[in-house]
Amino acid sequence: MNAGAFTDLKARFNAVRSRTEALAAVFTAEDLCVQTMPDVSPGKWHLAHVTWFWETFLLKPAQAGYTPFDPRFNYLFNSYYEAVGERHARPERGFLTRPGLNEVLDYRAHVDRAVSAWFDQADAEAVQGFRTVIETGFAHEEQHQELFLTDIKHVLSRNSFPEAGYPRQMQTPPQLAGARPDPVWIGFEGGLIEFGHEGAEFAFDNEGPRHKAWLEPFALASRPVTNAEFLAFIEDGGYQQAEHWLSEGWARMQEEGRSHPYYWRRQDGRWTHFTLHGEQMLHPDAPVSHVDYFEASAFASWAGCRLPEEREWECAARDMDPSQGRWADPDGLLEPQPLKQGSSFQALYGEVWEWTRSAYSAYPGYQPAEGAIGEYNGKFMCGQFVLRGGSCLTPPDHARPTYRNFFPPDAQWQMTGLRLAKDL
Amino acid sequence: MNAGAFTDLKARFNAVRSRTEALAAVFTAEDLCVQTMPDVSPGKWHLAHVTWFWETFLLKPAQAGYTPFDPRFNYLFNSYYEAVGERHARPERGFLTRPGLNEVLDYRAHVDRAVSAWFDQADAEAVQGFRTVIETGFAHEEQHQELFLTDIKHVLSRNSFPEAGYPRQMQTPPQLAGARPDPVWIGFEGGLIEFGHEGAEFAFDNEGPRHKAWLEPFALASRPVTNAEFLAFIEDGGYQQAEHWLSEGWARMQEEGRSHPYYWRRQDGRWTHFTLHGEQMLHPDAPVSHVDYFEASAFASWAGCRLPEEREWECAARDMDPSQGRWADPDGLLEPQPLKQGSSFQALYGEVWEWTRSAYSAYPGYQPAEGAIGEYNGKFMCGQFVLRGGSCLTPPDHARPTYRNFFPPDAQWQMTGLRLAKDL
Amino acid sequence: MNAGAFTDLKARFNAVRSRTEALAAVFTAEDLCVQTMPDVSPGKWHLAHVTWFWETFLLKPAQAGYTPFDPRFNYLFNSYYEAVGERHARPERGFLTRPGLNEVLDYRAHVDRAVSAWFDQADAEAVQGFRTVIETGFAHEEQHQELFLTDIKHVLSRNSFPEAGYPRQMQTPPQLAGARPDPVWIGFEGGLIEFGHEGAEFAFDNEGPRHKAWLEPFALASRPVTNAEFLAFIEDGGYQQAEHWLSEGWARMQEEGRSHPYYWRRQDGRWTHFTLHGEQMLHPDAPVSHVDYFEASAFASWAGCRLPEEREWECAARDMDPSQGRWADPDGLLEPQPLKQGSSFQALYGEVWEWTRSAYSAYPGYQPAEGAIGEYNGKFMCGQFVLRGGSCLTPPDHARPTYRNFFPPDAQWQMTGLRLAKDL
Amino acid sequence: MNAGAFTDLKARFNAVRSRTEALAAVFTAEDLCVQTMPDVSPGKWHLAHVTWFWETFLLKPAQAGYTPFDPRFNYLFNSYYEAVGERHARPERGFLTRPGLNEVLDYRAHVDRAVSAWFDQADAEAVQGFRTVIETGFAHEEQHQELFLTDIKHVLSRNSFPEAGYPRQMQTPPQLAGARPDPVWIGFEGGLIEFGHEGAEFAFDNEGPRHKAWLEPFALASRPVTNAEFLAFIEDGGYQQAEHWLSEGWARMQEEGRSHPYYWRRQDGRWTHFTLHGEQMLHPDAPVSHVDYFEASAFASWAGCRLPEEREWECAARDMDPSQGRWADPDGLLEPQPLKQGSSFQALYGEVWEWTRSAYSAYPGYQPAEGAIGEYNGKFMCGQFVLRGGSCLTPPDHARPTYRNFFPPDAQWQMTGLRLAKDL
Repeated sequence: MNAGAFTDLKARFNAVRSRTEALAAVFTAEDLCVQTMPDVSPGKWHLAHVTWFWETFLLKPAQAGYTPFDPRFNYLFNSYYEAVGERHARPERGFLTRPGLNEVLDYRAHVDRAVSAWFDQADAEAVQGFRTVIETGFAHEEQHQELFLTDIKHVLSRNSFPEAGYPRQMQTPPQLAGARPDPVWIGFEGGLIEFGHEGAEFAFDNEGPRHKAWLEPFALASRPVTNAEFLAFIEDGGYQQAEHWLSEGWARMQEEGRSHPYYWRRQDGRWTHFTLHGEQMLHPDAPVSHVDYFEASAFASWAGCRLPEEREWECAARDMDPSQGRWADPDGLLEPQPLKQGSSFQALYGEVWEWTRSAYSAYPGYQPAEGAIGEYNGKFMCGQFVLRGGSCLTPPDHARPTYRNFFPPDAQWQMTGLRLAKDL
Repeated sequence: MNAGAFTDLKARFNAVRSRTEALAAVFTAEDLCVQTMPDVSPGKWHLAHVTWFWETFLLKPAQAGYTPFDPRFNYLFNSYYEAVGERHARPERGFLTRPGLNEVLDYRAHVDRAVSAWFDQADAEAVQGFRTVIETGFAHEEQHQELFLTDIKHVLSRNSFPEAGYPRQMQTPPQLAGARPDPVWIGFEGGLIEFGHEGAEFAFDNEGPRHKAWLEPFALASRPVTNAEFLAFIEDGGYQQAEHWLSEGWARMQEEGRSHPYYWRRQDGRWTHFTLHGEQMLHPDAPVSHVDYFEASAFASWAGCRLPEEREWECAARDMDPSQGRWADPDGLLEPQPLKQGSSFQALYGEVWEWTRSAYSAYPGYQPAEGAIGEYNGKFMCGQFVLRGGSCLTPPDHARPTYRNFFPPDAQWQMTGLRLAKDL
Repeated sequence: MNAGAFTDLKARFNAVRSRTEALAAVFTAEDLCVQTMPDVSPGKWHLAHVTWFWETFLLKPAQAGYTPFDPRFNYLFNSYYEAVGERHARPERGFLTRPGLNEVLDYRAHVDRAVSAWFDQADAEAVQGFRTVIETGFAHEEQHQELFLTDIKHVLSRNSFPEAGYPRQMQTPPQLAGARPDPVWIGFEGGLIEFGHEGAEFAFDNEGPRHKAWLEPFALASRPVTNAEFLAFIEDGGYQQAEHWLSEGWARMQEEGRSHPYYWRRQDGRWTHFTLHGEQMLHPDAPVSHVDYFEASAFASWAGCRLPEEREWECAARDMDPSQGRWADPDGLLEPQPLKQGSSFQALYGEVWEWTRSAYSAYPGYQPAEGAIGEYNGKFMCGQFVLRGGSCLTPPDHARPTYRNFFPPDAQWQMTGLRLAKDL
Repeated sequence: MNAGAFTDLKARFNAVRSRTEALAAVFTAEDLCVQTMPDVSPGKWHLAHVTWFWETFLLKPAQAGYTPFDPRFNYLFNSYYEAVGERHARPERGFLTRPGLNEVLDYRAHVDRAVSAWFDQADAEAVQGFRTVIETGFAHEEQHQELFLTDIKHVLSRNSFPEAGYPRQMQTPPQLAGARPDPVWIGFEGGLIEFGHEGAEFAFDNEGPRHKAWLEPFALASRPVTNAEFLAFIEDGGYQQAEHWLSEGWARMQEEGRSHPYYWRRQDGRWTHFTLHGEQMLHPDAPVSHVDYFEASAFASWAGCRLPEEREWECAARDMDPSQGRWADPDGLLEPQPLKQGSSFQALYGEVWEWTRSAYSAYPGYQPAEGAIGEYNGKFMCGQFVLRGGSCLTPPDHARPTYRNFFPPDAQWQMTGLRLAKDL
């Protein structure tokens, strides 16, 4: 018997896999091969690594007699799963000129065929036994779709003459100057509230268990901080005012001589920023992006506010519909777009990940899963901050109210912005 | 009028200041001049910096016409107060051969005389106006007394032939081998509980405000992890088992080739460790010390437990009397001493700082103080973990149930250990 | 009029350009894009840079109205000519995914057509006026042909599973063990001798001016040191005997934990080395290669000898015919091949560049050429050693008795070996 | 019998040893303990190391039953003699707070007494057997006297408020502005000439053997380049003109943002430099000092000249009397002093070491001495340039016409200047 649910799983498998390839289709083998900093993985590596995940966690255990496409790929395309064995050094992923892109695409096709065949033959019990792996595989490949975009953006930006990845027209922005309305504050009463994931729907282990926590009354801004607002911070000397900065952030800023967000450039008296659609004028009403935690927290201090706690964000977002967010469309605009003024929440989901001031840590009662899959989240609970909401590079249907993204405070190449919060 | 309270403040001032000098008395000018890593400050720098604190935050604002001992010292001995101006680079504190130790001692005497004179002349209102500064000054100098000891320990240890700082006899330990009783688990019900400092007694700003939080039921071990227990972890291959380590900790361990706590040495088949009383045999029943957060968390995972949350520790410690702890006695043993088995809490206060798994962050409603003193705590709320309880290097009367110490997860030179926790 | 000489220049131009492309033909765009260390340039960069040289130093000044293929290439493909303007950072050459390989091949074709057209139209005087530039262009492109091979060898070797660049069969070597005859010593009387280039034939500026120097009597070994001889050094503990090493070399060795030449590997009790034809067994009678100056000089000391002075080598080689050397054949074996025993000089030309103990410096009376071309040699006269003779990666007709190659003493990725010398 | 020669050796021993202590007498234990960069050794280390030399190479082999002052000092105070065993890491010499200065002075006294006693008792043959060691010991201690001064100068300069080491009055300089006469060119015919040391007088092994070399006609400037001349180079934009710089020097300059010699400072529109007598105005007619090889060679190129070959310098200096130079006087001015204009050579000896363009390498026929003393010179023949003449920090009677000092091209903390040369 092959129930509808499995047909659905197979269809989702095909959709996820095709979407990855659609994102990669516009790039050359060279674009997808190089590594411009240790945090960046080559596009080809992403294409192969997500495939390795299916091969390692589904095909090898589920399909008797499965023949790996190439036994050496286990070493090359393991990311960080210590339990699965030794692996290629991360900062040297850009040295892998071989296998070439074509061979990696063959690898994808080989694994796709094998997974399809397995779906066609497996009985209900077998599929059920791997349901968590399969759902994790979807979420995992979607995460790498977003990383693919952030990483290739960095690669393109480090060419001497940065070029568009996706040559589409962006909206011509109005002048940066001129007053704009402030966001509206939306208040919450707080109290003893339950947070975190619960139930049969897929979620990562770090989203649970469901647990109680106490919140004091607070308010969140109706929308993320915009480019115009961030520019006001710059022009007011925010990058020179130590009192607003965390000590570590201030030290980095001084050392690197930073004075604006990562992809911004000042040329001929105008501010532009590098995007996946090439160098573009800054739009004053679009959410600011590519600010790291230090910049986000300094802005909040300068504005007399603070960053939200992750549970405050969850409290506000739990009744919103994630499908209303603007998510990554392979044929659409892969940059934050201008927001309209309004008195209700805007862009809680989509556009930019929002830094919270919550360090990434275990919820009460958290236990990592057993085995290699257990390495997915728990071992990174140190030195990182939680981001919520998802961005214009996140696939649709990927985020949810309990979703916890996390990055180190100095991460600049991710699609990160901020929303202000305050105590009531 | 010069009320008793002020007499008491003056007496405490003299006591704190004398205690600093008592700790330094056994060292040469050379011992107190050098810097063996960027995190370590020279002893002489500590002696001068705490003095600068009194001069800057009490004498200059409080005493009209106060003449600084040397106007250049404001640049030399400011630690990190951006609001007070530029300062000497931290990694170059060891370059300050001038002023010499004798001149720094003269500086101390000059400031001591001026503060004493001010106490003698100030009226009640004036003293009251500076009460927070004075109390902060006591706490600040006490913190530097502990840092003085941890830093000079590092300095002594980096001589090719490490020598005792305080040449006193430590107890001869029994054999490391042989079974020892496990700690007892002491359970707590949790619930909605108030945490943090409140009231007129001095506390740092980061200890407040008082706030509610929800705790699930939990248990803490009756005593810190001992050297014998940590050795069992080593001998079981704990330093080679990736599954117990945070990803960043595992990477560091591999890179540095670490296989034991910082000051331990294996020589001629026996384990010793460097102490302020010279190289000593490890005592199996003394709390393990100088483990960093990564080692502490790996040990806890290996033991099937976890580290406590800081509020769990506070919940357990709030009814205990800090004065029962073993604190730093300039004439006593400045190393953790063997614990006796027992069914109630041991060494919650004193012996070793206990790593919690709580990232150092702001309590709900936290606001840094205005001005330079506001730089004391808030700007470090990033990338550090909270430690609780105090150590055998902490001055008496310094710690309290709400006290929050904090260090980065890779800090090894501090007097840090751990206590196990688990969910109930 | 278009004299025969110019026809010849045009033919040489076509031959040199075709040879470059023949060497590159077996590689993928990915192989030719990445950079595995700062000293290595991507293959694509070499293909473009030599083309830029023709465009910059011949087409732009010689051909009125020449339209550059892409004006941005002047920034991208300038190597180090400060006089020609700013340029792309060397360690970031591997970031240039764009222009892609195909566009670079178009660039080559564009410039080739333009140069051909110029040859066809220019009169004798015009060609004569650029004769030095043209001859330099040949030599320059030939140098980059050799660098192309050494660099792509490094790239291939840094894949996790190194693969052959040129999949040809190498000779199966005999056992490494077993005594082999020593080289023969060939003596020279020395005296006051003239050295350096003179005359109408092309030579680099650093090969002149012709000048007198005095040599004491000396002898050179009849052949370069072989793999078998270098293995004897290793097995005798040569890498552990400080007395044979230069101080800087010894320090590097200790730091990097080196114990054999760069591409050697010890696997399953056998020595292999990575070659452009894949991983191969070491042939005992082939010249040792990829030793740096420190290894070469330590071997010579261990052998009770020394490295030659560059003028001693020139004295020995001046009457030999360079065309007898084994040079790089795009269809041949691009690794040093076993030598036959003999009483006359072997492999003075070809097989491996030979380290001399002469620091690379100016000959008496040396003056760099005017303008950008003057940056070719003189500005590198610091911290490098001269190598003589040419290697199996050097194009035929490239080397000559006065030719001076130079590399820093820690260069391991070049095709470098050594020949012993001694005083008589 | 105790011949006059030995009395003389003993007297020289006492004089050299006393002179070291005279130089150190004005400093505190702290000044003599710290290390401000890896190339700098603490003053205390110098005091001990030269003592270790006498103990290791004279007392231990010569005096049966000699008891070392402290057996651990062999490890601490060996500089780089691999043959003598393991040793304390060079960049950590500043960690040696123990032994303290007083103990090191006791060590000196202990060894002085033992050497004196040995001189009193040894017979002529015994002394003769150690004559080379003793003479080397004098030269060695004198070299360290100069290093002591250069190193303590660096230490003092890295204090936030640099202070005079030797508080003596320097001459008030005239205005920097205003034309000054050029140096006179003094020509030499060259030819086949003998160079290098020969004979019974002490010289280092690298000064020999005596050998022939051919020199083309050349001229040397009558005096070293002055501060006024170097300032003209700066003001003409010399630090921004790539064409005058060696490639490696240009890269460093850009990276470090250098624009003047190491100890120069521009404050309030005036140029000063840090000296052992504190911060001083630049004297226009004093030789420029603390220029590295890159600066020296760039200046020479800018001036249309070149640096001398070391044999050209020797050719010019061989008939001059070194005792006419201004050498380091513990009670005198330890900075280069203004030169008077003249038509004969000035300051060939003394004032500043003069960079030559000769890489430091072995003379024909050079053989390092056997054993540990053989490590003195030969193992440094890589990556360094020869300097000639001696400086105002060099002890009297230390230099001679054949003396070869050597430093890497980026050494800035040494008392180094330059003299121009040109071809005739």
